[in-house]
Order: sequence, then C-alpha cells, then structure tokens
Amino acid sequence: MAKKASSRLEWRINVPDGTSKVLEPESGAVGRIWVGLKGCMGIIVLKVWRVLENAWHIGVADPRKVIHCIKVGLALSIVSLFYYMRPLYDDFGGNAMWAVMTVVVVFEYTVGATFYKCINRVIATFLAGALGVGIHLVAEQSGDQLKPIILGISVFLFASAATFSRFIPSVKARFDYGAMIFILTFSLVSVSGYRVVELFELAHLRLSTIAIGTSLCILVTMLFCPVWAGCELHHLIHQNMEKLADSLDGCVAEYFKENGSEKDLNKKMQGYKCVLNSKAAEESMANFARWEPTHGRFNFTHPWKQYLKIGASLRNCAYCIETLNSCISSEIQAPPCLRKHFSNKCMKASSYSINVLKELAITIVKMKKSSNIDVKVAEMNFAVEELVDALKSLPTTHFIATTTGEESTKAKAEGVEGSEHPSPIMKVLPLVKVVSLMVEIATRIGGVVNAVEELARLAEFKAAKDGKPKQNQPTDKLVADHRNS
Amino acid sequence: MAKKASSRLEWRINVPDGTSKVLEPESGAVGRIWVGLKGCMGIIVLKVWRVLENAWHIGVADPRKVIHCIKVGLALSIVSLFYYMRPLYDDFGGNAMWAVMTVVVVFEYTVGATFYKCINRVIATFLAGALGVGIHLVAEQSGDQLKPIILGISVFLFASAATFSRFIPSVKARFDYGAMIFILTFSLVSVSGYRVVELFELAHLRLSTIAIGTSLCILVTMLFCPVWAGCELHHLIHQNMEKLADSLDGCVAEYFKENGSEKDLNKKMQGYKCVLNSKAAEESMANFARWEPTHGRFNFTHPWKQYLKIGASLRNCAYCIETLNSCISSEIQAPPCLRKHFSNKCMKASSYSINVLKELAITIVKMKKSSNIDVKVAEMNFAVEELVDALKSLPTTHFIATTTGEESTKAKAEGVEGSEHPSPIMKVLPLVKVVSLMVEIATRIGGVVNAVEELARLAEFKAAKDGKPKQNQPTDKLVADHRNS
Repeated sequence: MAKKASSRLEWRINVPDGTSKVLEPESGAVGRIWVGLKGCMGIIVLKVWRVLENAWHIGVADPRKVIHCIKVGLALSIVSLFYYMRPLYDDFGGNAMWAVMTVVVVFEYTVGATFYKCINRVIATFLAGALGVGIHLVAEQSGDQLKPIILGISVFLFASAATFSRFIPSVKARFDYGAMIFILTFSLVSVSGYRVVELFELAHLRLSTIAIGTSLCILVTMLFCPVWAGCELHHLIHQNMEKLADSLDGCVAEYFKENGSEKDLNKKMQGYKCVLNSKAAEESMANFARWEPTHGRFNFTHPWKQYLKIGASLRNCAYCIETLNSCISSEIQAPPCLRKHFSNKCMKASSYSINVLKELAITIVKMKKSSNIDVKVAEMNFAVEELVDALKSLPTTHFIATTTGEESTKAKAEGVEGSEHPSPIMKVLPLVKVVSLMVEIATRIGGVVNAVEELARLAEFKAAKDGKPKQNQPTDKLVADHRNS
Repeated sequence: MAKKASSRLEWRINVPDGTSKVLEPESGAVGRIWVGLKGCMGIIVLKVWRVLENAWHIGVADPRKVIHCIKVGLALSIVSLFYYMRPLYDDFGGNAMWAVMTVVVVFEYTVGATFYKCINRVIATFLAGALGVGIHLVAEQSGDQLKPIILGISVFLFASAATFSRFIPSVKARFDYGAMIFILTFSLVSVSGYRVVELFELAHLRLSTIAIGTSLCILVTMLFCPVWAGCELHHLIHQNMEKLADSLDGCVAEYFKENGSEKDLNKKMQGYKCVLNSKAAEESMANFARWEPTHGRFNFTHPWKQYLKIGASLRNCAYCIETLNSCISSEIQAPPCLRKHFSNKCMKASSYSINVLKELAITIVKMKKSSNIDVKVAEMNFAVEELVDALKSLPTTHFIATTTGEESTKAKAEGVEGSEHPSPIMKVLPLVKVVSLMVEIATRIGGVVNAVEELARLAEFKAAKDGKPKQNQPTDKLVADHRNS
C-alpha cells in the first residue's frame, strides 16, 4: 500500500492535470501487469535456460546419453510404421498399441536393463494370460451368478500375492517389473468381458505385438552403440580405484605440502566421496549385468557379484581416507619440524599404496593377472613397516624437547589453561593419527587386493604376457634397500 | 555308465529270469526319471519353502506391507466393478482398461509415491494429449502425403527430447514418471489412425478413466492405514540416531570390557552399518515426502531437505565409528593397565556423547525444542576436554616404564626385530587412536546438533514444556565438578 501511494504521488507531481487522473489507475494496472508478466517471463526464461544449460553439460559430458535418446526416437518411429503399413494394421488392429507401449516402457539406457524388462514382460504376460484364461474357463462353467465372484476373488488374491512378492529382496532384484506386469495382465484378462474363444485370439495377438516390441527394442539397443551394464560396472570400479588413489595422493601431498597449489589438490582430494556414494549404482548395474548375453570380454557367467565385494572393500578404504581428510583439515597440527621429519617416510608409504591401487586398476582394465602385484604389495608393506619403525624409534621426549623447546616455554610463560604439564604426546598426536591412518589404509588396501585376486580367479583372468624375470629381482633389491636403510 | 552296469548286475542276481531282462531297462529309465523328478521337486519345494519363510518373516516384521497388498487387491477389485456395471461399461467401453492399468501402475507403498505418480500421470497425459491433437490438426491440413512424415518427425523429436530430460537430475527427481507417460501418450495419440473429432472424444474418455483410477488410488491409499513417506523419513532419521548411539556405546563397552557378554555387544555395535547404507532410502523418501499433503504434525512446507542434511551429518559420525570399530578389533592393543587408567574418562566422554544423540533423537520424535540440549552438549565438551587433559597429563615415559617394564625387558630378551628402541609411543598408540577418534566423534556430533537445530528453526518446533529451572543449575554443577576434578 505504501508503495502504491507513493507511485500515485509521483504521478500527480509529474503530470498534475485533470485527465491524467482518470487514466492513471488503468495505465498503472496495465503497467503493473506488464511488469509482473515480464518478471514471470524472465524467471521462466531463466529457469528454462538453466535447465537447457544443464542438459547441454550432461550431453557434452556423456554423448552416449544423447545417442540413447536418438535410439528411443528411432525405435518409436520404426514401431509407428506398423500403423502406416495397412496390411499389418489390418492384422493387429488396436493391439498394435501394445507394441508402442512396450517400446516406451521397456527401452532402457543399458542393454542389461532392457533385457531384464523384455524377458520379465514376455514371461509375465504369458504366465498371467494363461492363468487368466484358465480362471475364465473355471468361472464360465460355474454359472453366471458365481462368475463375477470367482473372478473378483481371484483378482484380489493374485494381485495381493504378486504385490507382496515385490517386497521379497531376491524377487525384487530380479522380477520386480515382471510382478507388476503379471498383476496388470491378469487383471485385464480376468475382468475383460470377452468369451474364452475371443480371449485366445486376443492373447495370441497381444503376445505377438509384445514380441515385436521387445525384439525391436533388443535389436536397436544392441546394434546401435550398445551401453552394457556390465562394462559400466567394470568401468565404475576401475574409476573408483583411480579416484581413491588420487584422493590418497592429494591428502598426503596436502598434509606435507610446502608451497603447493591448493586448488588443484582440493579437487583431487574429493574423489573418495564418489566412492562413498556409489553403492546403489553398483548394485543396480550388477543386477542388470547378469541379464546380458556374452559381449566383448565378458561372458554370461562373469562373476558380477564379486564386483560388489570389490566395491565394498574400496568403500572400506574410503571411510579411512575420509577420517584422514578430516585429520588434515583439523586446526591442531604437529610442529612443522616433526612433520618434515616424517614427510619422506609418509610420502613413500602413500606412494607405494597408490602404486598398489593403480596396479589393481590396471589388472581390472586389462583383465589380466598382474605379475607385479605381489612385489608392489611387499613394497607397500615394507614402506609401512618403515613408517611404523620411524614412529617407534622416535626418541620422543628428547627430540621434542630440543625442537619445540621454544614453543613450550612460550606456553608456560602465557600460562595457557590445561597445559600445566605440556606432554610430548600432544605434540606428536596429530602426526600419530595420520601415520596410524596410513597404516590402516594400507591394511584395507590389502582387502582390495584379496577381492581383486578372487575376481581374477573366478573370471579366469590370464597372466600378463610381459614375462620378464621380475618376480625375484625387485624383492631382493627391496630387502637389500630395507636392510641398508 | 558304470552306475548303469552295476544296477543291471544287481537285477540279474536278484531276479534271474528271461522276462525280467526285457522289462529291466524300461523300469530303470522310469526309476531314474522318477528319482530325477523327485530331486527336482524336492529342490523346487525347498526353494518355494524358503521364499515363503522369507515372506513370512517380512510380513511379521512389518505388517503394513501385508496391509499394502490387501489395499492393492481392494483397489483392483473396486475398479473391476466398472466392468460389471453395464451402464458404466457402455459409456467407457474398452477405455475402462485404462482405469485398471492406472491402478496397477500408480498404486505405491507410500502416499507420497502414489501422489507423485498420480499427479505426474494426469498432467503428462493431458499435456501430451493436447500436443498430440495439435500436431494432428497441423498434419491433417498439410495433405495426405506430408501427414505421416510430420507425425513421424514429431514423434521422433518429442520422444528424444523427453527421454533426454530424464537424464537431468532435477527433472528425474520430480518428473521421471511423467516424462515416460508423456512419451507414451504422445506416441499413441500421434500414430493412432483416428480423425481429430474422434480423437477429442477418445481423449475425453481416457482422461476421465485415468481420473477415476487415480482418485480411487488416492482414496484407498489415504483412507486405509496410510503409510506416509514423510513419517517414514522422520522415523528413519530417529532410528539412525538411536543406532549410532548404540554403536558408540557398544564399541566403547567392548574396548574397555572386562567380562562382558560379547554376543549382545556385537549386535549392538553393527548398527552404524545401517546408517552408512541409508542414503538412497533417505533421498527417495524425501523426494516423495514433498508431494504429500498436510498430515499429522507435518504440513505441506515441512523442510524435508533438512532431513537429508541431518542424515549426511549422521553418516559423517558413522564413518568415524567405523574407524573406531576397526581400532577395537585390531590385534595390537594398549597394555591393560593403561587401558584401565583411561577407562573411566573414555566411558564418561562416550556416555555424554550418547546422551547428546539420545536427546537429539527425542527432539526429533517429539518435534519440540529440547531445553537440555545446550547443557548436554556442554557436558559432552567438558568430558572430552577432561579426556584430552588426561592424555596431556600422562607422564608418558615414567608411567609406562613402571607399568610395562616387564614386557619391554621381555621383548629385549627375545630380541624382537624393530624394537631396538622400545618407544613409549608404540605402547600408547592404540589408546591415543581411540581417544582421538572419541574427540573427533564428539566434534561430528556437534555437526548433527547444528543440523537438528536448523531443522527445529525451519519447521518451527515449539519449546518443550517441562519448564524446570534446569538451564543454569546443571552447568554450574558441571563447572564445579570440572574444577574439582
């Protein structure tokens, strides 16, 4: 109201004649509506623009998503042909609608998901159709009065049972969509007013249209740039390993850095968060991957479940890196001289741990048993042992008394609360935390190594071909190094 | 083959006459088939039995799932009535099928999910129908030759665009189902061979059957034992808090236990794993909760997103508890005397941390601002500070020299590798790890407190009514305690 009054006041001051007063409220209303409309349009344009920008980035980041959209359009256009080709149309009639519906509902991003839905749809339609016709036969023979009761009760019972089956985890993982299609088809067949003879014809037509739809989907999804759920899972696990290695590298570099560029490190360090959050994606992909036929280097019996175990062991590492990350960003830190003392050993342990992770990533990518992995694990264990030894051999009281003497006297002079007995432990504490986490991470990387070796055994990875006599040489060198140090 | 031969041999010995030889292979084959069938039947019965047992446990654990199944059966039975009531059937004809289909596809476990699907379905059907009719009008006026081309291109373009929109996270979260229904309806309308006048009638009928289906679903899902996604989310967050508190309690009790019952503790300790894995469930429930109308204590604008932040802060705590858990189960432990020395302080810090978590859980359940939370947080901080002080004031070398002197001399006598300089740090290390994790957990519980307070502010929780003059008394007592100790 105050705003309105002030605008009127302005108007009178600027154009103080009689006619302007009559025009003023109308023009004001129109103006306000116009301003409001402009504002609304602006907001809508801005929102649409943002969505489009977002969409553009998604498309650029993964062009296969754009290709998927084109595939869906293509499959629908092909299925539309059935409507324009009269001979087919005359055969299928209104049932051709089911082919369109099948394509829309069944076509998924990955081949595995499409297969899962196609197979579920066909089997569930067939089973439910057969059951529905059977119950129709029974109902028809028990008279007109009993028929609706029998049909109603059967719909109630089967729909309830099928709905409940969707709560059972093993059924949900494999047949969730099938259970829904079962309920749908069974209800439609049961309640349709047709006679049984008509039903047989209808069932035949519907099954053939669904078969046309599903086979078209499978053809299009497999022939044009197929996206295999198995490959995606394989790639995700490999990527997660790389991300973990980068995070570990970033964290340690950040902690012991002197004058590094912080921005670059920060981005690198955050990779472990993706690993923490990838459980759901891994599980759904492993679920779809087992429906996929043999493709590329993966056959039908590829041990997809083992990937979930590798994923779990990677997440186990990621939990530790998360704690390490919070140690690094904490404000209380060990004195720089002490940090410098441990810098080399820590960097060495972390770089050997990273080597193991990268070697595992290569094993996954190449699907060949690594000949170096034992050496690299030994290197990592040696480096960790050295780190622990360094911690053990740290002559705590003396070392700290000489190096941080100034600080402790300063604290005493200021009479800081709680530091009446400035203990050496508090000085070493942050570093001890980092070192013990490094040790824990190395242990958990050992878990990843075991999971990957189990995968290599189950999937029968071949040995890598570079048959250099490496197996003994480096270990010997390592042991010698270890003794010298 | 060996088995076959031996069975023949037996037969000859037992019944060594002529006719038996003719009958023998047939009876053997029948027998083998019979044994095989029995084996198959046994396996199938066993599997079905296991699934049924599993289903029974699921039903007993959450009877609402059974009620949901009954609700689905009920909704389908009601919608079937449309087929048996002739007047309605004559009106809707084959389109009544769409009501059945709507019920099957749209009816979900939670009210929010049902609303989400209903609203998406109605709006998408309406939009796609209108657009489809519009394009039909344009195509019809451009001649018979151009018509299929225009229709085909429009199907291709709109289907591709709608499919792509499903990849945009903000669209996927709210309108994924709508986009699918849009493609479906648009394709069906575009490729149908009807003339525009028929189309209008068809669209009207289809929209009304879908309206009947959706309103029936909404009525049934809301009237009979509704399961609100918002309540579920609220309950899940509360439960996760309790589980975290139990895990922390179990871990600390396990570490400092003398003669506790291990089984009970182990079960308690594993609760944090549920918290680690509940991200996906939280997100989907928060997504559905915002579609729900005002119910119980939750109104339409309840800040569901804040629950996700609380969930994230809880998971943050759970990461730390995971690391703590691995510390506890590690083989290398601090000497018992040292552990005993810290036992009380650690138990105190953990029990105050647990108090804070339990108070937050009560705040969530009662939806009332706690009057004690500040006191409890102060108590927790005091206890943690005491713990850190205890660590600081630990006269490392002397204490350990006197208490673990025997062990170190033993190690020296055995000449254990790497323990040439038996450092006090290695003795304290495991305990230092546990203590520093306790401190970190307390810090992260602070994050949970902040998130819950933000929720209380956003959702306008009222202050709890028990207006005892508690606010000052306990803090004074605490401060006094702190000084005395």
